[in-house]
Amino acid sequence: MAFQPLDPEFEQKVRSSFSRQMFMEFLHAELIKIEPGFCEIHVPYRKELTQQHGFFHAGVMGTIADNCGGYAAFSLMPKDASVLSVEYKLNLLAPGNGELLTGQGRVIKPGKNLTICSTEIFIHKNKVKKLCATSLMTLMTMHGKKDR
Amino acid sequence: MAFQPLDPEFEQKVRSSFSRQMFMEFLHAELIKIEPGFCEIHVPYRKELTQQHGFFHAGVMGTIADNCGGYAAFSLMPKDASVLSVEYKLNLLAPGNGELLTGQGRVIKPGKNLTICSTEIFIHKNKVKKLCATSLMTLMTMHGKKDR
Amino acid sequence: MAFQPLDPEFEQKVRSSFSRQMFMEFLHAELIKIEPGFCEIHVPYRKELTQQHGFFHAGVMGTIADNCGGYAAFSLMPKDASVLSVEYKLNLLAPGNGELLTGQGRVIKPGKNLTICSTEIFIHKNKVKKLCATSLMTLMTMHGKKDR
Amino acid sequence: MAFQPLDPEFEQKVRSSFSRQMFMEFLHAELIKIEPGFCEIHVPYRKELTQQHGFFHAGVMGTIADNCGGYAAFSLMPKDASVLSVEYKLNLLAPGNGELLTGQGRVIKPGKNLTICSTEIFIHKNKVKKLCATSLMTLMTMHGKKDR
Repeated sequence: MAFQPLDPEFEQKVRSSFSRQMFMEFLHAELIKIEPGFCEIHVPYRKELTQQHGFFHAGVMGTIADNCGGYAAFSLMPKDASVLSVEYKLNLLAPGNGELLTGQGRVIKPGKNLTICSTEIFIHKNKVKKLCATSLMTLMTMHGKKDR
Repeated sequence: MAFQPLDPEFEQKVRSSFSRQMFMEFLHAELIKIEPGFCEIHVPYRKELTQQHGFFHAGVMGTIADNCGGYAAFSLMPKDASVLSVEYKLNLLAPGNGELLTGQGRVIKPGKNLTICSTEIFIHKNKVKKLCATSLMTLMTMHGKKDR
Repeated sequence: MAFQPLDPEFEQKVRSSFSRQMFMEFLHAELIKIEPGFCEIHVPYRKELTQQHGFFHAGVMGTIADNCGGYAAFSLMPKDASVLSVEYKLNLLAPGNGELLTGQGRVIKPGKNLTICSTEIFIHKNKVKKLCATSLMTLMTMHGKKDR
Repeated sequence: MAFQPLDPEFEQKVRSSFSRQMFMEFLHAELIKIEPGFCEIHVPYRKELTQQHGFFHAGVMGTIADNCGGYAAFSLMPKDASVLSVEYKLNLLAPGNGELLTGQGRVIKPGKNLTICSTEIFIHKNKVKKLCATSLMTLMTMHGKKDR
């Protein structure tokens, strides 16, 4: 499915918003790719991000899922709108045992007020990429409320 | 509902697991209370934990929800078991605009293999406590796999 | 929590909507109680409603959960609005083994556009009532679109 | 992804289980296709299946989603096991306004004890097929408990 962005400067808008999320900087998260209805974020392994077994904490996966879906949705929203996460559901499929966590969010259905997205989270270890979480999300368009 | 813990040293077991989650230390999260089938965690505000509007990031709420539910479930599991998050669904109800984020996880239904929990996340601002997120989770007992 | 309904004739509005849902009649579902932010629905056992083991089908539980939450939310909406289910998540806790299935939906957070509800589904057998499913839902207010 | 079924007679096993679900007969639901990790079910329109606006009730979509995911998972389970729905989350994307409702369930990740599936529900009207709901589910393998 190819989406037409309502805001031709969607990439700049998303990158600006991402850069103002201090939690992303704190996690050393990087916005890798933003396309209409798509967003990819990477987080390299650090022991600060781990759970009790030394793997990526599920909360980091959830955070990346939330942001990948949120920015995939935001890329299709009008210039004068901001994005709000309404809810998400995350299934954890494998331990986050690896050196890099990557997330890809895709819009399933855009809408004037609500946008539905799915996200896949992958763990990379020794050049092998494995699906470790998947999510289904609902985002809301906040019309007339600029992100900045 | 009053639950009987299978492991009398459940509190020590949970606190030990929590202390080995480096992500909790990174977030300055504190395990406030652990009772059979209940867990409360607090996270004080820091700008490192924020999204683009300066409020607590939804990912922090999701992380706390995941841990409150997970440790509420873990408190009821046998001594030689560890806990695994299968999935969670989080509804965001209000912005995380405040100086403290607190989460309370409760077991709704314990089971030999699966435990279902709900979690409430509150934001505290100027002595006012407001529900800002709620979740419904599924946890799995990993029998014979000690947490440590 | 006590909610103030925006439409004083909320009960009539909900009952009228329920009565136009032919699927409710087909299931022999009965709208037992409607209060501001609360809805209770009962479905008596019939073999037509069962899964492969002769118990209530999970789809019947999901249907009742959807309607209990939907009408709990609708009870708080303005006169000229209709309600739309955005999404729900249902956890199945016990088999629907009994003679009556009852659902109770409660508004957790009402909002101008979105309302969040939780629902509990109980199975009744030999005078014993048991929680068999629980859900967390998001409903949308369709302003200016009368239900009828 | 191609899955190898553990039970070579998986199709017969699934069809037999489906035929014992009296709720499926009641809905006039038809099991169209069953392959390893995949299941498709159709339900023709009848006014008995409708909500207040005369469209397919969300509960019918949820029921079909539950069964498509459940039987997709069951197709990969060992001979002596039965399948249990743990939970599902359903996003409603468009009204069920049409003459046929079809569901396709796919296994995302099979596992010894838990299987994760996604389901797409389509509404067909005047030869046009439209995605109207999508779900993410968790199923459990009940080892040693034959479905019949």
